[in-house]
Amino acid sequence: MHIQLVLKTLGLVLLFEAAAMVPSLFISIFYQEAGTFSFLVGITAAGLAGCGLYLVPVKHKNVGYREGFAIATFSWLLLALFGAIPFAVAGAVPGYIDAVFETMSGFTTTGASVIPNVEILPKSILFWRSLTHWLGGMGIIVLTLALIPSLNIAGMQLFKAEVPGPTKSKVLPRIAQTSRQLYKVYVFITLIQVAALKLAGLSWFDSFIHTFGSVATGGFSNYNASVGHFQSLAVETIIIFFMVLSGINFALHYYWMRGDCRPLWQDYETRLFLTLILCSTAVISVNLFIVTGHSPAQAVREALFTVCSLITTTGYATADYDQWPALSKFILLFLMFVGGCAGSTGGGLKVGRLLILTKAFSRQLMRLIHPKAVIPVRIGQDVVAQEVVESAHVFFTLYMMLFALGTAVLAALGLDLVSAASAAAANLGNVGPGLGLVGPMFNYADLPDLGKMTLTFLMLVGRLEIYTVLLVFSVKFWR
Amino acid sequence: MHIQLVLKTLGLVLLFEAAAMVPSLFISIFYQEAGTFSFLVGITAAGLAGCGLYLVPVKHKNVGYREGFAIATFSWLLLALFGAIPFAVAGAVPGYIDAVFETMSGFTTTGASVIPNVEILPKSILFWRSLTHWLGGMGIIVLTLALIPSLNIAGMQLFKAEVPGPTKSKVLPRIAQTSRQLYKVYVFITLIQVAALKLAGLSWFDSFIHTFGSVATGGFSNYNASVGHFQSLAVETIIIFFMVLSGINFALHYYWMRGDCRPLWQDYETRLFLTLILCSTAVISVNLFIVTGHSPAQAVREALFTVCSLITTTGYATADYDQWPALSKFILLFLMFVGGCAGSTGGGLKVGRLLILTKAFSRQLMRLIHPKAVIPVRIGQDVVAQEVVESAHVFFTLYMMLFALGTAVLAALGLDLVSAASAAAANLGNVGPGLGLVGPMFNYADLPDLGKMTLTFLMLVGRLEIYTVLLVFSVKFWR
Ligand SMILES: [K+]
Ligand SMILES: [K+]
Repeated sequence: MHIQLVLKTLGLVLLFEAAAMVPSLFISIFYQEAGTFSFLVGITAAGLAGCGLYLVPVKHKNVGYREGFAIATFSWLLLALFGAIPFAVAGAVPGYIDAVFETMSGFTTTGASVIPNVEILPKSILFWRSLTHWLGGMGIIVLTLALIPSLNIAGMQLFKAEVPGPTKSKVLPRIAQTSRQLYKVYVFITLIQVAALKLAGLSWFDSFIHTFGSVATGGFSNYNASVGHFQSLAVETIIIFFMVLSGINFALHYYWMRGDCRPLWQDYETRLFLTLILCSTAVISVNLFIVTGHSPAQAVREALFTVCSLITTTGYATADYDQWPALSKFILLFLMFVGGCAGSTGGGLKVGRLLILTKAFSRQLMRLIHPKAVIPVRIGQDVVAQEVVESAHVFFTLYMMLFALGTAVLAALGLDLVSAASAAAANLGNVGPGLGLVGPMFNYADLPDLGKMTLTFLMLVGRLEIYTVLLVFSVKFWR
Repeated sequence: MHIQLVLKTLGLVLLFEAAAMVPSLFISIFYQEAGTFSFLVGITAAGLAGCGLYLVPVKHKNVGYREGFAIATFSWLLLALFGAIPFAVAGAVPGYIDAVFETMSGFTTTGASVIPNVEILPKSILFWRSLTHWLGGMGIIVLTLALIPSLNIAGMQLFKAEVPGPTKSKVLPRIAQTSRQLYKVYVFITLIQVAALKLAGLSWFDSFIHTFGSVATGGFSNYNASVGHFQSLAVETIIIFFMVLSGINFALHYYWMRGDCRPLWQDYETRLFLTLILCSTAVISVNLFIVTGHSPAQAVREALFTVCSLITTTGYATADYDQWPALSKFILLFLMFVGGCAGSTGGGLKVGRLLILTKAFSRQLMRLIHPKAVIPVRIGQDVVAQEVVESAHVFFTLYMMLFALGTAVLAALGLDLVSAASAAAANLGNVGPGLGLVGPMFNYADLPDLGKMTLTFLMLVGRLEIYTVLLVFSVKFWR
């Protein structure tokens, strides 16, 4: 482990964060808001710490996977710890733990909030809050490129083709090149959505805030009623479209933007993702129509938005789905676990893993019928490597255990079972809002500090594909 | 697939069931109860169907694994369908679907009931109801011996040593020999518990009923208040002891009864099982003491009984744990998923699988640190075969998916999320009572028929280690 190299890279990350706070400082000055001082403190702290770390002398320049895991984990941690400063100094939240929760929620694109009334916050604070989403989404794309191949994660074949194995010398330039291409895709999609929302009648500020929330599948809004505030079918349609787009592997977007649509149409993960959206919307619409007496149009409108919001792990709301019938709530909870596609900005287990787990199950049955046959797991024509299958299995088990652990801690703190379980699922899956006391009409403000810290940890672990964080926290990693 | 052989064996099973109803018929005649006619109908129906099937001409005499899977699945199904006749004819339940639910619940040692007031039932019906537990527990022990080795189930090394691989010619006599030995253990434990409960002051009838419920980890009682009815520390202690005993691999009991205690002390699965019991009891006791103001003695007493009852998947109750704080309820729900040890009469995921999943996770982390190393999964000194690890993974995934599916159906029928989820978990894990509307003070009587049928299916699937049933229901199995 080249610790100096890790420290120097973290220095760069902090300098980058300091720079990222500058636009919010300008907004603060422009609108003559009270937040100016808080951003000055934030920029100074992140800048100084960043400089200090950046000056660490470095011998080696090759980043291996171990260094990569450490850099990823501590980057998100430091980004949250320093990014929280403006919230704490400006008094937007009661204390530093709340500020770290809110910032981690931003950078992990979770969108869970401890702020009951966001509409009274200064524009600069709101802008910084949503910008963390956008930066976090960008960060996940590099992380996916750089580290995921070593984690044997399903559905990453496209990335793997771009990034050739763990040959250290070649990884960095290829990653740098590929991430530049994907960043262009990300920025392009962002600009289109901002334009679309502006055309639909939103202010520039609202357009940016809700674009950051959509393309990063983050979910922070500057209105207490979330996207429901606009009461606009056009706005909802645009946001649905971009949430779904952001829930799909960005490498596929890269191809179709260059004119090659085949990778997108032929992708089994995307097909399953869209199928899940359609089926869930259909069942929930009928459930709402029959049980709660929604009109058909209203049922479909609310169901489609909520399904897209939760499966992509965005967490925007246009309806209080906590009041929906139990079947609908259960499907939504299930979708929170499913999550987006691998290589998207979405969280959760990922559709690709689910696909592999289903195939592995069929294979297991075939093996019992033909005990001596060697049967590979296939997706379409492609054979899925055994390590990828096993990695998906272990990931699923770990995910369920962390979910159980999180639920236990929250239940111990006095939450009822539905609130506790949905809070754990929503934060581990980087969704944001859950059900019950942490449903779409409520927030995480009233949780005890220990609960907030547990959820902050779950957001981090969930965002970094679990393995990354657990590795860094394991003793053997440092030997 | 030698279908004739399967049919002939099923005939034997039905003849055996007809014979098993005879004691209940005698009880009915002895007490001059109204149930006499219903048992005559049951015995005639099972006897005639059994004879018919038994007369099927058979060419081959070798039972392969495929035939085994079919025999197991259809045995439990037919046992429930014919065993339900006395309940239906005697009018103990409103209809045949209820009767099948109750009988399947018996033979799968689930113990979920649709009878709100069992205290008004004739003794003969109560005896038959509890005898199905005892027979089902016995059945599971053969099933484990005969089929489990081919399913690569964790913790079955001891059985594997007894049953050499899939060499057809040798399997049958060895299975027959080993099952005789294990049946002696089962009968011996049964007799000891009956004697112990009689000494503790119970009537012979009550002693038998609660012994059948304990050694089969079944949970049917002849009192509405379950074991809480006796208000006796002695009775609770005896039942705790025998529930825990029955949650441990019966092969280990066979060894210590022959004087060799080492296999028991050295068994990692048993150690983890006992550790889970102690830790859960400790946490729940403290939780009860602090939150609900139980006295320390009362807290430990209720916590220990409930923990043992739920982890062994027995489902007896001495307290209304549905009223306990959320943390305690969550731990109980978790224990329902864990279940007993492999080779016991307990259900659930099984402690051994959990152990393997934990080890597989550590292995995965080690692999990420040392990508080129070949690292086996070890339990103690023994290397766990890769197929066993993978089988455990697939089983866990399947179990969670069936749990989710069951919850969805029950939620669709209008149950709240906690009731729906705990009902699915309690029936898939063969526990019996859940939380909320299906908690220890309630029963399954008010569920719609579709809900009862879903749970009946979950009991069967859970009891037969999922694979068995799904295999038989898959098209490729029959080709
Ligand atoms: K989110
Ligand atoms: K049971």
